[in-house]
Amino acid sequence: MTNIADDVLADLLARVRRLEDERDIARLIASYGPLVDAGEADAVSGLWADDGVYDVEGWLMRGRADIHAMVESPQHQGLIGRGCVHFHSPAVIAVNGGVASAVCETILLVRRDDSPDGHSRGFTVQRGGATHFELRRADVSMHGWEVVRRTTRLLDGSAESTELLSRARLSGGATAREPDADRRA
Amino acid sequence: MTNIADDVLADLLARVRRLEDERDIARLIASYGPLVDAGEADAVSGLWADDGVYDVEGWLMRGRADIHAMVESPQHQGLIGRGCVHFHSPAVIAVNGGVASAVCETILLVRRDDSPDGHSRGFTVQRGGATHFELRRADVSMHGWEVVRRTTRLLDGSAESTELLSRARLSGGATAREPDADRRA
Amino acid sequence: MTNIADDVLADLLARVRRLEDERDIARLIASYGPLVDAGEADAVSGLWADDGVYDVEGWLMRGRADIHAMVESPQHQGLIGRGCVHFHSPAVIAVNGGVASAVCETILLVRRDDSPDGHSRGFTVQRGGATHFELRRADVSMHGWEVVRRTTRLLDGSAESTELLSRARLSGGATAREPDADRRA
Repeated sequence: MTNIADDVLADLLARVRRLEDERDIARLIASYGPLVDAGEADAVSGLWADDGVYDVEGWLMRGRADIHAMVESPQHQGLIGRGCVHFHSPAVIAVNGGVASAVCETILLVRRDDSPDGHSRGFTVQRGGATHFELRRADVSMHGWEVVRRTTRLLDGSAESTELLSRARLSGGATAREPDADRRA
Repeated sequence: MTNIADDVLADLLARVRRLEDERDIARLIASYGPLVDAGEADAVSGLWADDGVYDVEGWLMRGRADIHAMVESPQHQGLIGRGCVHFHSPAVIAVNGGVASAVCETILLVRRDDSPDGHSRGFTVQRGGATHFELRRADVSMHGWEVVRRTTRLLDGSAESTELLSRARLSGGATAREPDADRRA
Repeated sequence: MTNIADDVLADLLARVRRLEDERDIARLIASYGPLVDAGEADAVSGLWADDGVYDVEGWLMRGRADIHAMVESPQHQGLIGRGCVHFHSPAVIAVNGGVASAVCETILLVRRDDSPDGHSRGFTVQRGGATHFELRRADVSMHGWEVVRRTTRLLDGSAESTELLSRARLSGGATAREPDADRRA
């Protein structure tokens, strides 16, 4: 039997907390697609901070009410009625104290009305996008974190879209490794 | 140096165990696509409980033998021979003691036989689906968990399909946060 | 208050380290798509070991310089300029001390030039692939791990492609569960 050193325990607790933070953020992002494709306007808008921004080209939403209205809009309800999948790749998450960022790629699939190949209606990929999240810790939220800003841009070769993806480099670099002292504890 | 309080240690062990449970379930779900696209009938059916159910519209499988038979069926083997990808999004996982649920979206891509655009045969997206898993802990299983029921429905605007996705809301709400006391330990 | 047994502490630290290793590898793999679609040649080639291999059918790259050249090649830059998404599924990761393997499925989406359905240009799925990673621990790397070999094969029904996916079975079996003694600590 041995006593555990104060700093070893503090370090261990911080490492577990970081894993939980990353898990919470990954889950928040993973829930966006299912919730928006289900038309869950309250749950989708609840992923954002009260003053959160959702900036997708052609549509700038400020605050939960705007995001709620997007989910209930004829445009989005039309996608759901036809059959749609907002698919997100696993995100590259970087937590830095009470704030975090995440980068992923997103595709939007919509069910075809026609049947061009004869044996399946199938889906078309209507959009492919670069997505960047800024988040902040929110212990009162059921997710533990809330989205401060989500920016999504069509992947069409524009510098604006690839710049969002490049942040996966900075994020990874900033947080991929704890200081060696922490890892060796 | 200090002693660690009993409740702090118990809490820490419970938090690590939860992260491991979520990791085990995420890995089980992530392995489904590669295994079913490889035709690994034993490994695929082994993800389910002995009495597990796989309910995909038009095909209700009860027990591992049914699932094994699906993988070896001419229909599925035809997909593999042509070239297919059963793609799953990151799952929203909720563990509650010895049971768990998970929600994700799934797409099925199949290689084209023709070459409509002249420079690539490419793949078509044949289906987009809503998927819900019920799982239970199974310490004797190599995965630590086994699927009790998987339900998949085509995303075609039906209430049945969007209801499956809505469970991402309930799952998240139930388990996204530990009680504050646990987090502050 | 109680002392923590040496073996309980050692076990707990090992379990947290494993979760961190898996997190680091998942993040490395998740970053590949955003980085390669952004044309970040330094960051992409930096995911590989100095002597790492990237073996994709029709293109065998040996070492970081080869991978860097692929990202800057006219072929790849053409994809970026048109708009592309290298989408990876969540990986099945198996860590074994200082080495690890991972299996995932990958799809390549490219923006259409034409507008066949009249209301969206959309993307086509140009390729679907089986991908296997061999990695090794690299504490000096900012990712903590580096790719020793990545093998990707078109999913076209060939034994070579499905054999890569079958490794998700072996990986899972090898590491899905810690010995019971560790889990019960």
